[in-house]
This record gives sequence, structure tokens and C-alpha cells, in this order.
Amino acid sequence: MTVAEKLEALRQQMTQHGADAVILPTSDPHMSEYIPAHWESRRWLSGFTGDAGTLVVTKKESCLWTDGRFFIQADQQLKGTPIRLMRMREPGVPTVGAYLAKAIPGGKVAVDGRIFSELEAENVQKELDTTGAKLISLDLVADVWKEDRPALPETPVYLLEDRYSGCTCADKLAQVRAELKKAGADAQLYSLLDDVAWATNLRAADVDYNPFAIAFLLVTTEKAYLYLDKKRIQASAADYLAKSGVEVRPYNKLEEDLRAGAAAGTVLVSRANTSFDICTCLAENKDRKLVAGGDIITNLKAVKNKTECANMRICHVYDGVALVRFKMELERRMAAGEPLTEWDAAEIAHKYRAQQPDNRGESFETIAAYGPNAAMMHYGPTKEQHSDLQPKSFLLVDSGGQYLTGTTDVTRTFAMGPLTQEEKECFTWVLKCHIDLADAKFPQGTTGHELDALSRVQVWKHGLDYRCGTGHGVGYMGAVHEGPHSFRSAIPLVPGMTITDEPGIYMEGKFGIRTENTLEVVMDEKTEYGQFYAFHPLTMFPIDHTAILPELLSSDEIAYLDRYHATVYQTLAPHLTAEEQAWLKNACRPLCQK
Amino acid sequence: MTVAEKLEALRQQMTQHGADAVILPTSDPHMSEYIPAHWESRRWLSGFTGDAGTLVVTKKESCLWTDGRFFIQADQQLKGTPIRLMRMREPGVPTVGAYLAKAIPGGKVAVDGRIFSELEAENVQKELDTTGAKLISLDLVADVWKEDRPALPETPVYLLEDRYSGCTCADKLAQVRAELKKAGADAQLYSLLDDVAWATNLRAADVDYNPFAIAFLLVTTEKAYLYLDKKRIQASAADYLAKSGVEVRPYNKLEEDLRAGAAAGTVLVSRANTSFDICTCLAENKDRKLVAGGDIITNLKAVKNKTECANMRICHVYDGVALVRFKMELERRMAAGEPLTEWDAAEIAHKYRAQQPDNRGESFETIAAYGPNAAMMHYGPTKEQHSDLQPKSFLLVDSGGQYLTGTTDVTRTFAMGPLTQEEKECFTWVLKCHIDLADAKFPQGTTGHELDALSRVQVWKHGLDYRCGTGHGVGYMGAVHEGPHSFRSAIPLVPGMTITDEPGIYMEGKFGIRTENTLEVVMDEKTEYGQFYAFHPLTMFPIDHTAILPELLSSDEIAYLDRYHATVYQTLAPHLTAEEQAWLKNACRPLCQK
Repeated sequence: MTVAEKLEALRQQMTQHGADAVILPTSDPHMSEYIPAHWESRRWLSGFTGDAGTLVVTKKESCLWTDGRFFIQADQQLKGTPIRLMRMREPGVPTVGAYLAKAIPGGKVAVDGRIFSELEAENVQKELDTTGAKLISLDLVADVWKEDRPALPETPVYLLEDRYSGCTCADKLAQVRAELKKAGADAQLYSLLDDVAWATNLRAADVDYNPFAIAFLLVTTEKAYLYLDKKRIQASAADYLAKSGVEVRPYNKLEEDLRAGAAAGTVLVSRANTSFDICTCLAENKDRKLVAGGDIITNLKAVKNKTECANMRICHVYDGVALVRFKMELERRMAAGEPLTEWDAAEIAHKYRAQQPDNRGESFETIAAYGPNAAMMHYGPTKEQHSDLQPKSFLLVDSGGQYLTGTTDVTRTFAMGPLTQEEKECFTWVLKCHIDLADAKFPQGTTGHELDALSRVQVWKHGLDYRCGTGHGVGYMGAVHEGPHSFRSAIPLVPGMTITDEPGIYMEGKFGIRTENTLEVVMDEKTEYGQFYAFHPLTMFPIDHTAILPELLSSDEIAYLDRYHATVYQTLAPHLTAEEQAWLKNACRPLCQK
Repeated sequence: MTVAEKLEALRQQMTQHGADAVILPTSDPHMSEYIPAHWESRRWLSGFTGDAGTLVVTKKESCLWTDGRFFIQADQQLKGTPIRLMRMREPGVPTVGAYLAKAIPGGKVAVDGRIFSELEAENVQKELDTTGAKLISLDLVADVWKEDRPALPETPVYLLEDRYSGCTCADKLAQVRAELKKAGADAQLYSLLDDVAWATNLRAADVDYNPFAIAFLLVTTEKAYLYLDKKRIQASAADYLAKSGVEVRPYNKLEEDLRAGAAAGTVLVSRANTSFDICTCLAENKDRKLVAGGDIITNLKAVKNKTECANMRICHVYDGVALVRFKMELERRMAAGEPLTEWDAAEIAHKYRAQQPDNRGESFETIAAYGPNAAMMHYGPTKEQHSDLQPKSFLLVDSGGQYLTGTTDVTRTFAMGPLTQEEKECFTWVLKCHIDLADAKFPQGTTGHELDALSRVQVWKHGLDYRCGTGHGVGYMGAVHEGPHSFRSAIPLVPGMTITDEPGIYMEGKFGIRTENTLEVVMDEKTEYGQFYAFHPLTMFPIDHTAILPELLSSDEIAYLDRYHATVYQTLAPHLTAEEQAWLKNACRPLCQK
């Protein structure tokens, strides 16, 4: 079926069910970032493969909303389809709700309420209200996408042992219950897969890159119910759950249990993390009182415990060693004149990560983007479609691994040969941004949002900016993007949080540069002005000297870079061969030493 | 009467009127920063002369809340009184409301509702609710403070001509009405004196440092009413008002008019800027609909028009010339070995400002603080109490003028002789903070709050901070502090706004350093990342070279300082004598030129 045929089939369903429009979000019942293929209807219908986007189909039109990271990619992939690209946050571009309110005043807008959060539903409905349109929960895709639709995954579910998690499931449930009590609530339902994984210490491989099992968790003051098919759980994990007081229920019984009265009393609902359908279901029981609030597990999970912090330093050594080997092989083969592609680069990185202890795959799809491809912020090469590496300009590699000892996320931009003055300037400006943020020390209570300008002011100086956040929290053997904090968020940073620092410059048609370390928030001195915190870089891999114009760096910036490189060498050297040590020694030399 | 006697008299009133506590804010019916003496009951009762503070008296206790700027001063002035200092925002210090809720559960808390905003009343009431206490509007001071209580001022009211204001009163009222329409409202009452002054182009000298007449303004879609006694208005101003469609009503008739139905329909109420009593009065009429919203005039006023922007550059030349003469006289007399005090310094600055064209006095009480006195952020010398200047350490001078062409606010910290290494380091760190913010360029939509860290990160690095905002808006022949924007605010900065950049280091018992310029937000380049804005320094006066450690500055910071000093010299030189030019030339020499 072509995109046009698929849209036509969807419109037939719309007519049949009396809907005037349909919203197809990029989502699943767990509000996941990595969507199981079964739920990728937006991708299947539109052909756009980017990680973020909302397809809206009316009787007359079809439009796809996506953000700045994906404009170039969406332009290419939507070519030849009837779908119009809506560039989110650009002047004159309406929101989905505003567009629909105008396009079908008083009409009915269908969305699959299982995969749309209560908060999104409310926000869209507010905009629809302006013209009397109405959002309804209705799955119109089921009868259009049938034959080739993948089933839900059912990979084995195993236990992340306490020596990795640093905290038993029973203790975590006790923490959750203490927070429930503080909030005056009796229960909270957890839909996010990383919430469920954190609280139960279970892991699986249901989803690409995220080591999770598809499941729900309901925690009440007395009990905990895990909605996950029993047959999938390994024996040792099943024992552990039983000892932790967790009752396992079939995955598809959640709504039935809720209707039957599970989660009684006051239920704390994170409206951003709970689906429209589940909220409707919770609200049906009149004895139950719903209170909107935060997601307790998300907040607890963000602050890593001592074992996790110690382990993360270990997995970042593994990751650094893998990257040294990757870069050396790349240099060797390029020097030998071997034709190499972006895909080869991604494969080499994968190979060395997979050889590291406790590795459980990658934490996201590797971006190995050569030259102009790197200007597409979330471009990823495929086996079929990729560019050749040439001995000039930049190769940007953004990659990460899953380890039992933690999750990594690192970007380096490598000079593949001679660079232009513009390339070197831009590389150095990005480095200044990266360092000025990473080197900050700040008082207790400071939020990521309040520090964001430190990382942007050096590109703003040149009329440049980057159309994405400066950084995000990173999970532990978990989601590579996790909240609630980020450099856009008004959540105060506290020791034990991880956060990436990844400013960039993206020159369409020319090149893309990003320098990213994962940082850990750590304690610093306490003075009469209060407790200060700082960032400790977890990522251990050198930043390419050859692309830097040292005269553009301040002495503080040079001192930071030299200190960082000395630490990288000391940390990785014991795990390397003599040849690798020599390579790293050179890569980590003081900046102004020739 | 001693403080203890005054408190006792107040407690008798409490008993008589059935109040269990009384709140005495630092305020007046216009939510002014500079309070007419008539309304300074908090000061009269407590003896604390600082600009911010709230006195709370219960039957058992009396406490004064103030913020970090005034801790040292309040400690000194409350010594020997029964009043306990409550250090706002320090750990363990309750808010006024929380304190009262605990101290008098279920009790009655009196506050003079004429001088307490609706928003403050609501916030306090929310905290009182926790124990069932109740806020009531009741003036208990009237019968305690009688004989020596000053009357309300009645200075002549004159017109700020259109060539100074850049916009007629009629045009300003049209702007206000256009905004009322956008907000779907029929009227707004303006209590702030600077709002009234801006809209009517009237000025007077009712209040210290603020060239305003005490008045209210009511703007409806059809009419405008100025509550101000007619006899005070100069003939030309009265004509101007009549032509502008402004009806003058007696000052004390406002509540009566509101009760009689003035301001009909939908009334937009800025709850922060309108008193508890007026809001109660507005709400009494059931036909009237109150809608909470922003203060339209405050928002319009913050963005200076082209005439105002051009004029502000002129008044800053006047101000710079006055400061050159001030500093030269100070140096000359110090060199001659003449004994000089902080008070002398303030007087000399006053003398030269008063000689400048269009000067209408000072914009706030000059802070001339020598050595450790400068660590008290809002210390001001008096004729009776001040310190001697010595040929070492720092003299901090924070001062400003009112001119028909604008309002100025500038702080310089002068080396009075040899400095310690610590003094020089701190001076240079403050300078880095000042420059890193002033030199920022930022995209449209950026808020002051988002830029704040740029000005703090260089003191945070040393475990230091300053317990106040980084800067505030500045009026035009108006209030030296004006909103809605600041470096704490989430209001986007736009061209035409003025804002001060005044980081500092305050070492209790040692010294205080602050470097402050008033900046204007100006247009910068437009790129594919949008429209960029930048800051143009309005203040024209050199920063003391002799206190700087150049090796601590980055090359960007040195370049900024040298550029600024070259501009200062070029701008002021044509207005100076040859001797003054020579002095300024040296003070403005490039930093690394000996």
C-alpha cells in the first residue's frame, strides 16, 4: 500500500465511525520514547521514520507535525506523499489542536485513547473547545493496519541483581509508599516502562535500546500489582517478586481490575504519564478520588543511589575503552585508504561496546553522521542508506551503551582530515559552550533551566543557536532520556542526578557539531551562601584536539579541558594495551603542547 | 515614646478592637517603594529605617521580617528593642503567614487594608487558613500615631512636555484602551504612582526621589478619571489634561465613585498593584465583573519609545560628566590630606548632579559606603552617622539622578589607596560577572531570569553569591526600580527596556563591591535562528582600573572593557574641560596599557 492508499483506507474508517479527523501520535500505552513496532501506526501510515511527530488526517488534508530536530528528514521522507509538513514552533504554524479547531469546527476528532495521555487529551480538547469540536477515544487504525502489523514483544524478563541496582524492590516500594503518604494518597498506577523497571528491578528486551518489559505497576499502601504475563518471568525473578510482596497479574487485566475496584481511596494520577483511557476508567468508580500530582517513581529514580553512582563510573570506563578501540580502528582503516561509510562506523562502535563486560546492547540508535548529514540532528545511517567517509570535514558520532552498571550517552565530533576555518571556529564555540556549563558550580536550589544560558551564550554571540534542549537526565540500565530534570526544566538539580551536556552547531548542507558528556551532579563546598553543587563528567573519552582553535578559548576553558583529558587518561590507561595507551596519551595531551 | 512604649500602645488598640495580631507592612495605598512619611508606621514603630520590612505584633511578641540586604542594618537598629529579627529566606525562618497561623490559631489578624495589596492579603490568608485564623482590614495605627504624624504631601503638579515624554497623554490612553480591548475588559484602575505619571505625563515631588504626584487613575473604554486635588495642578497641566479627555476628581473620592458605579462592566484587576480595600470595594457591586490580569500601564511603560531612548542617552552624558567632576574633586581633596567622610562624598556627588541641565534631583538616596559599611547592601550615610574615608580599601558609591530626559542608576566601587589581594580578586570577579552579562547577545523571547546565571557563575565558582537580584528595570523621569522585567522575572526582554546589571560581593566586616551600569535592550542581527537582541550600556563612567587583576579576565572580557572605556571617553570628552579630559583619558586607557 502506498501512503495515499493507507490514508484513503483510514478515511473510510473515519466515515464509517463518524469521525471528522484522526490524530495519530507517536506513542504507546506506556508513553514510551521507543515505541514497539506494534504501535508505530504514525510511522506506518506516513513513511516518516523520525522519533517524534504527530500525523493528523481530516477528510481533506493530512499533516505531520514534528520539531526542529526532524525538519530536514521529514522534508525528504514526505516528498511524493500527500502529507504536508508542519514545522512546530515556527512562526505561523498552528498547534495540532488549533489546526483541528479551525479545520473541523464542531467536528469529532478520534484518537486511540490507550496511547494518548490524559494531559495531551485535555490540552487538545481545550483548543478544540474554541469551535466546539470534541475529542473521542476511538481506534481507527485496527481495521486498516492488520496483516503486516507486528505483535507485542514478549522477551524473557530477568532480575537486575541488588549489587547492580543498589536497592531491593521491597525497599523501593517502601520509598514509594512513604511518598504516597506524604502526598496524602493511597495508590498510584505506573505506566512508564522505566518506572516499572526501576521499582521491580526487572529488565527485559521488549523495546529497542530500552531494556524493559512492557508492563504496568500499581502500588497501594498495602500491596503492589505487576501487570505482566507470568510465563515471561524467569524463575529467580518470580521468586524475588514474591518475596518483595508483588503480585503478578496478566498484562491485559489492568482495566478490568481497575473497574473491579483495585486502587481504592485517593489515587495520585500523573496526568502526563497515564493514558486517556486509563484515566477515564479510574474516574468511573465514584468511590475513588483522583488527585493530580507528580510521578513518584520518576522523581525517586532520577536521584541515583550510592551503588548506582559507583557503578556508573565503572560502565563509563568500559564505554571509554570501547570508544578508544573504535576510534583507533577507524583511523587505521581510513589511513589505509579503505573505503568506509557511516554505517561501518556505527558497526565498529557497536562491535567494541558489545565486547565490554556487562554490556546489554546500545542505549539508542547510533548516529554516525558524516559532513552535511550531521546537520540533521537525529539522522541515523541505515544498512541501506548512508554516506561515505572522506578524509576531510567532520564525522559526528552520538552513541551509548546499556550495561548492568549503567547507561551511557556520548557524542564526539571527529576531524576526518583538514578542516576549514569555519569548521574549526564552530567546533571551538561548541566546546566553549560545553565547558562553560560543565565547569559551573551552583548553589542548592538551582534548576537546569537557570543554567541553560551558560551553554548557549557562546553560540548566541555568533547569531547561532541549537533547536533542542542542552541536555537530559540519563537512566541506569534504563532509558537514555529520563526526567524530570533537564536543562529546560524548573526542577532543582541535586547530587546523584545525571544529565547530559550537549550543545551543538548545525549548518544545513554543510556540517553538524555536537560535543556531549554525561555529567553527574555532585556535592561541592558549603559556604555562608549555602551548599554548592557541581558537575562531575562521567564520560571518559578525549575531545578532538585537532579541531580546536586554542586562541578562542579562555584560560579557564583550557585549564578545564586539560584537567578533563588528564583524568580520562589516568582512568582508561590501566584497561588498555600499550599501543592503545600511546594513542590515548597523545589524544589527551595538554592543549597547548605540540 | 520608646519602641517598647509604642508597641504597648498598639497592643491596647488590639485589645480594644478584638485583634490578636497586627501586620505593619512597608507600604502605602499606591504600593510605593518610597513611602510618604505619613504612611511610615512600620518605621515609626520599630525604629528600623531599611526600605523593606514587615513588623508583626502579637500580644506576646513583636518580630520584624526583612531580606538579606538589610540583615546587618536591622540587627544594629533593633538592638535594645523587644523586636526580634526574622531573616527572610534563611533556613527555618517562617513566613509572616506561617508564623501567625502558629502563634494565634483561630485568631484575628489586623492589617490596614488601604496599604496591603489584594494579592498579599490572599497569600497571607491562605497560610492563616491552616489554623483558622482570619485577616481583617483594620487600621490600628491611627490612634497610636497622631501628634507627630506627617500630613500627606501636596507639591505642585506639572507637565512633562511631549518632547521629553515622546508620546501625548491622549495617545497613551489610546494604547491603554487598545490593551483593555485585547484583554476583553472595559476598565482598569491604576494605583501605582509611576503608572499614573506615565499615562498622564504629570510629575510632582510628593515622594522622596520619585517625581510623582500621589494620585489614582481610572481608565475606561470611554473616559479617564484622575483622582488628584485640582488645586495642586499647574494651569498648563490642567489644560493638557482637559484636552486629553481626563477628568480630575478629588483624591479621596475614589472609593465613593467606585461604590457609585464608576468602572462598570468587566474590570481588569492587577491584584498585586491594587489594595485589599479597593478590591473589596470593587467586588461589592454585583453588576461589575472582576478579572484578574496584568497591569497594562506597567507593561506599556517598560518599553521606552524612541524619544525616551534618545533622551536617556543624553541624561546619561549629564550624569557621567557629574561623576567625573565628583571623582576628580574627591581625589584632589583626598590627595591634599583633607579629612573626608562618606557623607561628604554623597554631598559632592549631589552638588555636581544638581548642576546638570534638566536635573530634578536624585533618583534614590545615595549609598556612599566606605570599607565594611559597603557590606551592608543598602547602607546609606546620614549627616549624623557616617564613616571617614581612608586612603586604602574601597568606597562604594551607588547613586542616580532624575532628569527630564530620564532616570539614572550607577554604582562604582573605587580603590581609595592600596588594596589587598583579596580585595582585587573580588573586584575582578564582580567585573567578570558584570561584563559576562552585559556582553550577552540573546534570541527574542529570552527572559531576564534565563540570563541571570551569566552574572553569577563567576562568583559561584568561589563559593560566593549576592543576596539580591542582578538588576531591575529603570523608569524614565520615574521610579528607579520598575517592572515588570528584571533578571529574576520570566518576562521576555524586548528592545526599549532598560535594566541594571549590578552583581556584587559583600564580605561582612570587610568590604562591599558592586559594579552597576544601566543597560538598554537593543536590536541585534536577525539570522536563521531568529531575531537577536543585545545590551547597550547607557551609563557612561569608567570602572576603576587600579582594582583589576587583568590576568583573571578573559580576552573577551578585556576587549569589552576596552571598548566600553573608549566609548565613555568619546561620549563625555566634548562636554569636559581640558583638565577633565586628561583625567578621563587616563581613567579610560586600555586595560593592559601601563
